[in-house]
Amino acid sequence: MKLWQKGQNTNKEIEKFTVGNDYLLDQNLVKYDCIASIGHAKMLRKIGILSDSELKKLEKELKNIIELEKKGQFKIKLEDEDCHTAIENHLTKKLGELGKKIHTARSRNDQVLGALRLFEKNELKEIEKFAQVLESELKSFARKENSLMPGFTHTRKAMPSSVGLWAGAFAESMNDNIKLLKSANALIDQSPLGSAAGYGVSLNIPKEFTAKQLSFAKVQNNSLYVQNSRGKFEGTILNALSQIMLDLNKMSTDLIMFSMPEFNYFELPKEFCTGSSIMPQKKNPDVLELVRAKYAVMLSYEFQVKTIIANLISGYNRDFQLTKEPIMKGLYLVKSCLSIMVLVIKNLKVNKEACKKAMTSELFATEKAYKLVKQGYSFRDAYHKVKEELNKC
Amino acid sequence: MKLWQKGQNTNKEIEKFTVGNDYLLDQNLVKYDCIASIGHAKMLRKIGILSDSELKKLEKELKNIIELEKKGQFKIKLEDEDCHTAIENHLTKKLGELGKKIHTARSRNDQVLGALRLFEKNELKEIEKFAQVLESELKSFARKENSLMPGFTHTRKAMPSSVGLWAGAFAESMNDNIKLLKSANALIDQSPLGSAAGYGVSLNIPKEFTAKQLSFAKVQNNSLYVQNSRGKFEGTILNALSQIMLDLNKMSTDLIMFSMPEFNYFELPKEFCTGSSIMPQKKNPDVLELVRAKYAVMLSYEFQVKTIIANLISGYNRDFQLTKEPIMKGLYLVKSCLSIMVLVIKNLKVNKEACKKAMTSELFATEKAYKLVKQGYSFRDAYHKVKEELNKC
Amino acid sequence: MKLWQKGQNTNKEIEKFTVGNDYLLDQNLVKYDCIASIGHAKMLRKIGILSDSELKKLEKELKNIIELEKKGQFKIKLEDEDCHTAIENHLTKKLGELGKKIHTARSRNDQVLGALRLFEKNELKEIEKFAQVLESELKSFARKENSLMPGFTHTRKAMPSSVGLWAGAFAESMNDNIKLLKSANALIDQSPLGSAAGYGVSLNIPKEFTAKQLSFAKVQNNSLYVQNSRGKFEGTILNALSQIMLDLNKMSTDLIMFSMPEFNYFELPKEFCTGSSIMPQKKNPDVLELVRAKYAVMLSYEFQVKTIIANLISGYNRDFQLTKEPIMKGLYLVKSCLSIMVLVIKNLKVNKEACKKAMTSELFATEKAYKLVKQGYSFRDAYHKVKEELNKC
Amino acid sequence: MKLWQKGQNTNKEIEKFTVGNDYLLDQNLVKYDCIASIGHAKMLRKIGILSDSELKKLEKELKNIIELEKKGQFKIKLEDEDCHTAIENHLTKKLGELGKKIHTARSRNDQVLGALRLFEKNELKEIEKFAQVLESELKSFARKENSLMPGFTHTRKAMPSSVGLWAGAFAESMNDNIKLLKSANALIDQSPLGSAAGYGVSLNIPKEFTAKQLSFAKVQNNSLYVQNSRGKFEGTILNALSQIMLDLNKMSTDLIMFSMPEFNYFELPKEFCTGSSIMPQKKNPDVLELVRAKYAVMLSYEFQVKTIIANLISGYNRDFQLTKEPIMKGLYLVKSCLSIMVLVIKNLKVNKEACKKAMTSELFATEKAYKLVKQGYSFRDAYHKVKEELNKC
Repeated sequence: MKLWQKGQNTNKEIEKFTVGNDYLLDQNLVKYDCIASIGHAKMLRKIGILSDSELKKLEKELKNIIELEKKGQFKIKLEDEDCHTAIENHLTKKLGELGKKIHTARSRNDQVLGALRLFEKNELKEIEKFAQVLESELKSFARKENSLMPGFTHTRKAMPSSVGLWAGAFAESMNDNIKLLKSANALIDQSPLGSAAGYGVSLNIPKEFTAKQLSFAKVQNNSLYVQNSRGKFEGTILNALSQIMLDLNKMSTDLIMFSMPEFNYFELPKEFCTGSSIMPQKKNPDVLELVRAKYAVMLSYEFQVKTIIANLISGYNRDFQLTKEPIMKGLYLVKSCLSIMVLVIKNLKVNKEACKKAMTSELFATEKAYKLVKQGYSFRDAYHKVKEELNKC
Repeated sequence: MKLWQKGQNTNKEIEKFTVGNDYLLDQNLVKYDCIASIGHAKMLRKIGILSDSELKKLEKELKNIIELEKKGQFKIKLEDEDCHTAIENHLTKKLGELGKKIHTARSRNDQVLGALRLFEKNELKEIEKFAQVLESELKSFARKENSLMPGFTHTRKAMPSSVGLWAGAFAESMNDNIKLLKSANALIDQSPLGSAAGYGVSLNIPKEFTAKQLSFAKVQNNSLYVQNSRGKFEGTILNALSQIMLDLNKMSTDLIMFSMPEFNYFELPKEFCTGSSIMPQKKNPDVLELVRAKYAVMLSYEFQVKTIIANLISGYNRDFQLTKEPIMKGLYLVKSCLSIMVLVIKNLKVNKEACKKAMTSELFATEKAYKLVKQGYSFRDAYHKVKEELNKC
Repeated sequence: MKLWQKGQNTNKEIEKFTVGNDYLLDQNLVKYDCIASIGHAKMLRKIGILSDSELKKLEKELKNIIELEKKGQFKIKLEDEDCHTAIENHLTKKLGELGKKIHTARSRNDQVLGALRLFEKNELKEIEKFAQVLESELKSFARKENSLMPGFTHTRKAMPSSVGLWAGAFAESMNDNIKLLKSANALIDQSPLGSAAGYGVSLNIPKEFTAKQLSFAKVQNNSLYVQNSRGKFEGTILNALSQIMLDLNKMSTDLIMFSMPEFNYFELPKEFCTGSSIMPQKKNPDVLELVRAKYAVMLSYEFQVKTIIANLISGYNRDFQLTKEPIMKGLYLVKSCLSIMVLVIKNLKVNKEACKKAMTSELFATEKAYKLVKQGYSFRDAYHKVKEELNKC
Repeated sequence: MKLWQKGQNTNKEIEKFTVGNDYLLDQNLVKYDCIASIGHAKMLRKIGILSDSELKKLEKELKNIIELEKKGQFKIKLEDEDCHTAIENHLTKKLGELGKKIHTARSRNDQVLGALRLFEKNELKEIEKFAQVLESELKSFARKENSLMPGFTHTRKAMPSSVGLWAGAFAESMNDNIKLLKSANALIDQSPLGSAAGYGVSLNIPKEFTAKQLSFAKVQNNSLYVQNSRGKFEGTILNALSQIMLDLNKMSTDLIMFSMPEFNYFELPKEFCTGSSIMPQKKNPDVLELVRAKYAVMLSYEFQVKTIIANLISGYNRDFQLTKEPIMKGLYLVKSCLSIMVLVIKNLKVNKEACKKAMTSELFATEKAYKLVKQGYSFRDAYHKVKEELNKC
């Protein structure tokens, strides 16, 4: 039975349609809903709704659910609709009336947001770690494998570059990405609890206290804004994630091209490549092609969330439910791509011989022009002099 | 073991990453890959690669796989990578050398496309049927429930309209949507078989024959175009699907508003609505909100496919694999939304009393102007005369 | 003065904001609004609202406006708001009362749609011609410049291909694109006239007659559907256009790579390339990079239209105005890119020597396997035999 | 003549195509390119490339260009291609050889980025100011016009709310938006100068010095990262802008609905509304419909930039040029929408009578349940008790 149900039967097909895969996605939130519920219970204790022993019982059972979930023994069923109902049903079954009491002074609306933000904060922290690992892997690759290599503009050899410059570009970018993660985290680090369905609760509750229990940096004051920021905050998270994916997309695009036998600057180990069912000679960089493509997938998650929430009036709308999947998938996608790129960089070989051979004379045309500048030419004149010479060849 | 594997070990993490959820999605293709393989085997018989009895054995076993899959007993494993490997492994296990022979004159590339297009053609046919059912449901609703109701422009009462006009608009649109489905179907109704990995096979094979076996309208001639159309054809399918979803989005937006107690023109049965965990009085149109939101989800699938395939050189690229999920999910999404809207329309009530009460005088201002036109006024002057009168009130 | 204005002053800033650049975009519609108005006037004559001599005067002045516009002498001003007001004001100034009479039995809503669809039909016809020219240019290039060249999968040499196969792939695709253009054209080839603001007119008017005057294939029956299809029809046009752009994107991506000195299969004439302000040696394929990038621009137009119209109730909403710019820009973009690609293909050189040199042995591995198949091997065994040999090298 | 041109003629059609509307967009950058050039010249003085008097002459002429541009007397021509060439041509014409000397130690690539970032920083500052004005306008509206009004969830009356809560939600959100603007600004506040075409210059130049002259917070170290961040940084700017637009979209959606006569909570002044060409009674909220729709337009700008830069190798690609239009248009769009919403809020009326009348009993159902909680019921039981009572009515 759902939290809102009693004496009201829902058409089975409608129920299946409205629940969708939400009960499966919510498996990710069980832990965080329990944590948030413990914080909420402590607040209820503080204002006298719960006694000490009631709080203890609730806390114990909620921690028990966390343990069960970790072991795969707390499964949300379609009939439960979501993790919140599943948890409340479990509590009521175990603790009777007390299980019902925990819903005092909250709504499923602020409950969802509480669990979701705790989940997101945790994921962002993890992604930050993965990004740091990639950053330091790139730096050590830059040091270890440094060698001259051609620099390109317009997909044409342009000027002398180096493997170190290449890897360093992504390391510095990863560092900026981490700042974006932190800034997304700062945005969502606001406790929604106490906003109920967007219009507060008639009980006077200490929202700051709950926020502190859950380590939120502050309370999100306006209860309607809490609802209005659903999907909106996620948009900024997804922007940070797609910025990371853009870098992995570019790294992959570079590596796919520069590991072609025609270039051969880089080499992927055999066991990272796949073959063809018809061409016995193939050694394909599938892993890089998929990372490349996943930038587009990530963009579609970002765009999905940002479009779902368009043209809706203030307050909760059920449309918000559909923002869960793209945010959860987006967070997972970035984690898995970051960790696979760490593996790639760790195992990437530089063919110094091939890089050296590729350092052909046209790469040094600008340098030649600068030599003329030192001899007193204006840069424009030096440029045209070198250009004329090149055209003669 | 994969089709292309021997003496080559793939890194486990890389394998897991590259396979992704493809082996799960491919469950949808098992049936169609078997059908395509039977057609291909018949062609191999025709050109003498297979004997009669070999063809028979293969055909029998492929049909057996179809049956197993229907009963949920043919499960593709992550190590199989995809349905094609799973099927070939099964055939080889059952039929020995013969199982390997079926891969003659094809590549996984044209095999994937063959199965995928048969699947898509079938889904489009089904969706067409659902769209027809909705069209006729709308028409009968228009007949049955007709009643005057206000027509709106700019979300403001504009002119007299009717429930019949409202439902009829969507019926006529559904009819145009069906034409788009047919046109998408005509585009993909081209046999890719024989194009192998995009560069044909050195054996001389009768591609027309295979196409005929599989009821494809024609052969897609240029083997490279076959690969280049991957994702591209799907883009046009997804456009047709998002056009359908746009209509369902608008129907839902209308119904959400016009079933507000403030309007009360329409009414959803109680068992189609859900309640709130905190507000005992609520009767929420969740089903409509979700259909509305699923237009944005569909757009993201369309955009995802169209973006994944950008900036790629000709020929197969592994990026294409990721176009499977959005197309499969998109087809499923439309089917489920169409069928739920049939249910909604079947059960939708019109409150004729409320509609009648809403037919207030300002709706008839244009009619008044036209009456003056009949008395000899130019329309512009009539318009301004009526406007002045209204401003006096 | 606007059509709807009298005794009502609009705030200047609001006016500037709401008109936006619409009056500039509408310059494209002047001709078509005049054509549609002539058709409408003929209908008004038929039902007796206009006399013969009135019709003649209106027709003459409307044709005069078309001529003025062609010479750049009919400029819509911001205060006019759009072409419809500009034209009606001009008529009233010239013809007095008669100029006002033409607005009988229509609204600006069906007027906009009438002009827009005539414009779009004309543009689609032109784009079809451009696509045909490119198709035949590709075919003649395929004949003229044919030569072996490597075929790629996964951005890796795969099997023998040819310049003819490459160009032929795009020619065949262009042919399918033309079908998509025709199907988009068939969808919009429905006369909106007589639907007024979405709820018809109280006069009984022969809509079939007007449709025939304007060469529309049929009347769009349901007046509300006429409004609801605004933006929706454009979505299908934009899908056809982005399918064309996808092909140009792939052609460009191929040419950018295969004209790198590292490949050198193709060569762009010098006067098609640009240089660098700092690197004297550069010869950059900017034209191709921009065509490539314009696929993303086109996608954004498509997505823009499809998103603007989400979550809106039935009937006209001002939001629709903003769909004009992306559709107009999209049509122009495709025309200019098609015509520039015709120029590129006309001037593209194939370096047969470089192509030949690139036909290295690994491209023939599959052929080797097929030779073994002819000797009795199953394809799988032949494949593995060849693979082992390759690994020994 | 372009910076890179000499003895090389470009095909006229190709030139027109590649320049596109870039020379028009660049008009926005003239001022900032001059400022950046002055900073660059000071650096050249510091390292001895320019003498004191040369620096003075250059500085004077660059400031002169800024003045000319302000008066509309510095127009970039199509043949100039962009502002950088136009400015250098002007300098050379006025100062001869000295005009050429300023291009020493830079490329057009870092020059574009320098001007662009200074422009963006300035625009972001302005947008921040507009957002602050809207925030304080909302706060004063909340204070002035406060009154009870119904709160909605699922587009259904839910619980008691107030005009103050409604306006306060957007004020608090605007405050968070300002943080996003600041964080986007912090990201781009890195000097690109000295990175040249992505591979540095062979002269040893003090990049920190130039950065300081231009008030950049720091130097972007890795020269390749400078190029790779083109479009990427703009993605984060556009995310901040679309977050603002999302709020304006929601405000507009609310106001469109709540100013319908059926609700009548809010009222727009007459001179903010437009009429209909056929319906004399209409008073349409066009300004709000357009602000609503512009969220979708903004999303398409964001998506356009993020898609253009997908699947490109490291280093400059001409594709980047096309990111200029969406970023410039996006910045302008937000400014104009913010300023129009300030005007709207300033002039918005609250119909307190209508709001009061709308406070119907079902809005107080939750409060009733809480009263029962205070009497000792668990919230769940109280909830079901109230629900049963409501169902009896």
